[in-house]
Amino acid sequence: MNRKEFRDLASPEAAHEAIDSLSIEGGVERVPLENARDRVLVARLDAELDVPGFDRASLDGYALRAADTFGADEADPARLEVVGEVHAGENPAVELEGGQAVEISTGAVMPSGADAMVPVERTERDGADVVVRTAVAPGDNVMFAGADVAAGERALGPGTRITPRDIGLLSALGIDEVPVRKRPRVGIVSTGDELVRPSEDLESDRGEIYDVNSYTIAAGVEDAGGEPVLYPHAGDEQDEMERLLRQAADECDLVLSSGSTSASAVDVIYRVIEAQGELLLHGVRIKPGKPMLVGQLDGSAYVGLPGYPVSAMMVFRTFVAPAIRDAAGVPEPETATIDGTMAVRERYAEGRHRLLPVGLVEDADGESLVYPVDKGSGATTSLAEADGVVEVDPETDYLEAGESVTVTLFSPSVRPPTLLGVGEDDPTLNRLLDGLENPRYLAVGSRPGLRRLRNGVPDVAVVAGPTERSVEATALGGWEREWGLIVRPGNPDEIEGLADLVDRELRFVNRTTDSGLRSSLEAVLADLAADREVDRADLRASIDGFDLGLRAHESPPRKVIAGDADAALGLRDTATRLDLEFVPIGTQSVRVLANPDRTDKPGVRDLERALEGS
Amino acid sequence: MNRKEFRDLASPEAAHEAIDSLSIEGGVERVPLENARDRVLVARLDAELDVPGFDRASLDGYALRAADTFGADEADPARLEVVGEVHAGENPAVELEGGQAVEISTGAVMPSGADAMVPVERTERDGADVVVRTAVAPGDNVMFAGADVAAGERALGPGTRITPRDIGLLSALGIDEVPVRKRPRVGIVSTGDELVRPSEDLESDRGEIYDVNSYTIAAGVEDAGGEPVLYPHAGDEQDEMERLLRQAADECDLVLSSGSTSASAVDVIYRVIEAQGELLLHGVRIKPGKPMLVGQLDGSAYVGLPGYPVSAMMVFRTFVAPAIRDAAGVPEPETATIDGTMAVRERYAEGRHRLLPVGLVEDADGESLVYPVDKGSGATTSLAEADGVVEVDPETDYLEAGESVTVTLFSPSVRPPTLLGVGEDDPTLNRLLDGLENPRYLAVGSRPGLRRLRNGVPDVAVVAGPTERSVEATALGGWEREWGLIVRPGNPDEIEGLADLVDRELRFVNRTTDSGLRSSLEAVLADLAADREVDRADLRASIDGFDLGLRAHESPPRKVIAGDADAALGLRDTATRLDLEFVPIGTQSVRVLANPDRTDKPGVRDLERALEGS
Repeated sequence: MNRKEFRDLASPEAAHEAIDSLSIEGGVERVPLENARDRVLVARLDAELDVPGFDRASLDGYALRAADTFGADEADPARLEVVGEVHAGENPAVELEGGQAVEISTGAVMPSGADAMVPVERTERDGADVVVRTAVAPGDNVMFAGADVAAGERALGPGTRITPRDIGLLSALGIDEVPVRKRPRVGIVSTGDELVRPSEDLESDRGEIYDVNSYTIAAGVEDAGGEPVLYPHAGDEQDEMERLLRQAADECDLVLSSGSTSASAVDVIYRVIEAQGELLLHGVRIKPGKPMLVGQLDGSAYVGLPGYPVSAMMVFRTFVAPAIRDAAGVPEPETATIDGTMAVRERYAEGRHRLLPVGLVEDADGESLVYPVDKGSGATTSLAEADGVVEVDPETDYLEAGESVTVTLFSPSVRPPTLLGVGEDDPTLNRLLDGLENPRYLAVGSRPGLRRLRNGVPDVAVVAGPTERSVEATALGGWEREWGLIVRPGNPDEIEGLADLVDRELRFVNRTTDSGLRSSLEAVLADLAADREVDRADLRASIDGFDLGLRAHESPPRKVIAGDADAALGLRDTATRLDLEFVPIGTQSVRVLANPDRTDKPGVRDLERALEGS
Repeated sequence: MNRKEFRDLASPEAAHEAIDSLSIEGGVERVPLENARDRVLVARLDAELDVPGFDRASLDGYALRAADTFGADEADPARLEVVGEVHAGENPAVELEGGQAVEISTGAVMPSGADAMVPVERTERDGADVVVRTAVAPGDNVMFAGADVAAGERALGPGTRITPRDIGLLSALGIDEVPVRKRPRVGIVSTGDELVRPSEDLESDRGEIYDVNSYTIAAGVEDAGGEPVLYPHAGDEQDEMERLLRQAADECDLVLSSGSTSASAVDVIYRVIEAQGELLLHGVRIKPGKPMLVGQLDGSAYVGLPGYPVSAMMVFRTFVAPAIRDAAGVPEPETATIDGTMAVRERYAEGRHRLLPVGLVEDADGESLVYPVDKGSGATTSLAEADGVVEVDPETDYLEAGESVTVTLFSPSVRPPTLLGVGEDDPTLNRLLDGLENPRYLAVGSRPGLRRLRNGVPDVAVVAGPTERSVEATALGGWEREWGLIVRPGNPDEIEGLADLVDRELRFVNRTTDSGLRSSLEAVLADLAADREVDRADLRASIDGFDLGLRAHESPPRKVIAGDADAALGLRDTATRLDLEFVPIGTQSVRVLANPDRTDKPGVRDLERALEGS
């Protein structure tokens, strides 16, 4: 097994520099005004005309000569002959002389001969005359041509990110097309024989998995102001991979590859880049992300991302997204980073720059607490559980609890959860959570949930079945749930309870020991052992599959559906949902326990109200 | 002239309530995953499969039975027979027995019979055998089926705004289409005979102006998460207006009308709404925005916005955008508001809720100073000069300088300028500004520029020609500019200087008294008066058009091009740019003066560097 070794690892700074040295600008394009929002102007736009283009009445009223109103007031009004009217959008048909007035609408062209106007409120119509109860000066209530914008004035400068108000100014100037930076085109080539697009069927027997990186990185590219282009899967076939990489380089400003972790894929990419371009660096002294590649291919920029989704996302976010933003001319919004404090201590001793995926939770004072998320680099769920990344330099051995850190959010649109819950996986809870705004729930099981609550990170823990209650917590409420064995429809094996599993040749699927259901099952098994005056371990051993514990509430019954088991530990709710038969054993209470400091937090109060209503 | 009177004005709160009472939700649609970014889920998505779907090797190495490695270490390695290999994406062809190992790639399916794997770094290949230098426990380096996400687990809840990381999770679950909230469709009907779309030609004689509100409000609708639909101009023709309003109501969730300020248009809208729907309120106790309408039309929501662009934008931003955001499920980002302090005192005494358009400038400490922008409600330039709106309640008579206010930005993408400059309109300056990032320059003229600098709001003032220097300021640099008369190509009137304007029948166009050019012209005129021993006022009076002052540097020569004048006051640069002839009179210096407190502000330093380089 030959593996490409990464010996001369570059520093993270060198990686940033290498990427910055690549040109990924997309050039210039002209877009119609209605598509100009959020685009970045590449040239100064000057006014090519006066706005307004004519002397314009500012109000509804009468155009006249100011001199004719001198001295007029309520007691001694002026009386003028009305010789016509002008509405907005009309060419004034009349020319006005001394002693005359013209009825005029807001926005209409001032008739020649008039030098001011009087608003209708200060006048009274009297047959063919108008009585004017105020004096005006020349220019009063008239907006002169060019008073708003004059031809030749600088309107918008290069680099302006166009917002609605700028569109307003451009409209006023009659500009219906603007020169803007092209969005950098970013090609995404994912390699790996095992990858399947989400729309296709998965053959798990062959070890196929859905391609996570392509769409995730594509969305990240859009977030950063680029235009993603997804290429078909290359697999690990070398010629095809080379063809796709070169096609992407031809069509895009930047090519990202990701997906395959196989050494042969890396070898092909090396060979293609070295033959058709230039490899600027291979391997960076960071974790994760060590095998990152940066180079040029057929004149386009190239960056090779790690294969694991969380690693790929963190490396993309830290190294690639800023370069795309620069090229797009769209600076990072301030909301893209959040300052917080570490909720727990995190230790390193690796001497490498580290990208740490983290989640966020607000404490009682609304401050952001930051906790590390690490379910192993292969886990895609850490993506959904993490809000962003903290960079830790190689000299740092510890991040202490309470230490200040800056979190770069995976996307400026990421909103930290309003509630962080941990604990038992339960269908009733899932429904309750649906009524809350942006909750996060980690179904880690009852015991780990309690342990995490003790560490002070989550807002609430949800606990089912018998537990040692050594955690200081505020009970928010709870419910009962019926548990037992889930069997095939019609219960063909005529299973009546736990004793059948002990006494007969039936294949059983259990839950993990973290689950509250497992605790209740163990308790019932202990009772059965006591009844029979046998050792509990012997009963366990006589149940085929007792030690095979699955993590989530639907996993065991799904084994029954798949024909891999005859009975599964589970809930009545789950049996009903999956159209299976339920053999009841007992009920257990599910309790929602809150961190005592956080009971006033809005998300916790929302959950408490939802519990009361359930 | 009949005007619809607004007697029973509603409170701003009642206006918010009326709009909130309208249903503008767009319903549900299914979108493919690649278009799901930033959309809002309407239902919970549970995992329908295990991720991974099989027991998966976490590293490159050898799959084996953990029991075969018990006790193995560097000194006493275990030796196993290699019976095959499995790559990612392959169905393992081998079944493994005791004493055997299978070469396995990261991500590949664990062969049956194996319960752990050893990473390649801890092994050495020796012919058909592998030497294993470490002991592993069952499950080591294996990710079990469902360990990442288990079938039946809650993946994403309703209301989730989909960001790249969520797309990653959905990809992993093979979900390629998601149910999301439809973007509310917002129809925009602009009325008014005088309005012309920016792509069309303008007839200024008829009082036509470009339609500013349609595209501005459309961009605001997109900003708020809605989908704008522009309808053709209705003009003021009643049947056509009614037809368009009803078509928009039929096709959209919300109809906005704006544009016409004519009383007849308002009357038609009233009539249509009252006949086909319900008018909830007409007129709100706010300024501007009094004639706002809220109602229902053929089952769709309807809001009538004021006609003036700044008023329309402020009323949209304050009352309508929040309702669209609610319906779209896209909350306002935190960056949509900025806290600042008033730079100057602003006085009211109107007893009405006020929407105040304001601009932002950072002071020396990076704090946001807020200054009112008011060029008259008809001005579209206030849109480009204002960053947002401050709401002032009717009880407030003053906003004091230094008072804290909250600015709602016109768009979350609005970035306050890095430099605020005021003063003379000059083409050299315009080029210098092109090199700066996001500057704002208000070409108000030299004298008003100095006056504003004295008030402490802008960072710099740009001053040309002779001025009284009573302002404490730091000189950043400057340049000379050549000024004189701009005449037709070839100078057909053989104009040689100012004396020709005095002595001959020539039509002249001047600049306003705010301009530095005008000051220099007055000085030369004074010299001429002294030479001739006549009164300066007499010389002025003998120049036809001397009192017609235009505001911007290109406006007078454009009158020459249009044939309305024979000579215009202007710069050599301007004459060259417009292909006109230049008759020099003198040179004047342009000076850039900085607020002494702001000389260290990055934008000011950037300008100083640009001046040094020019």
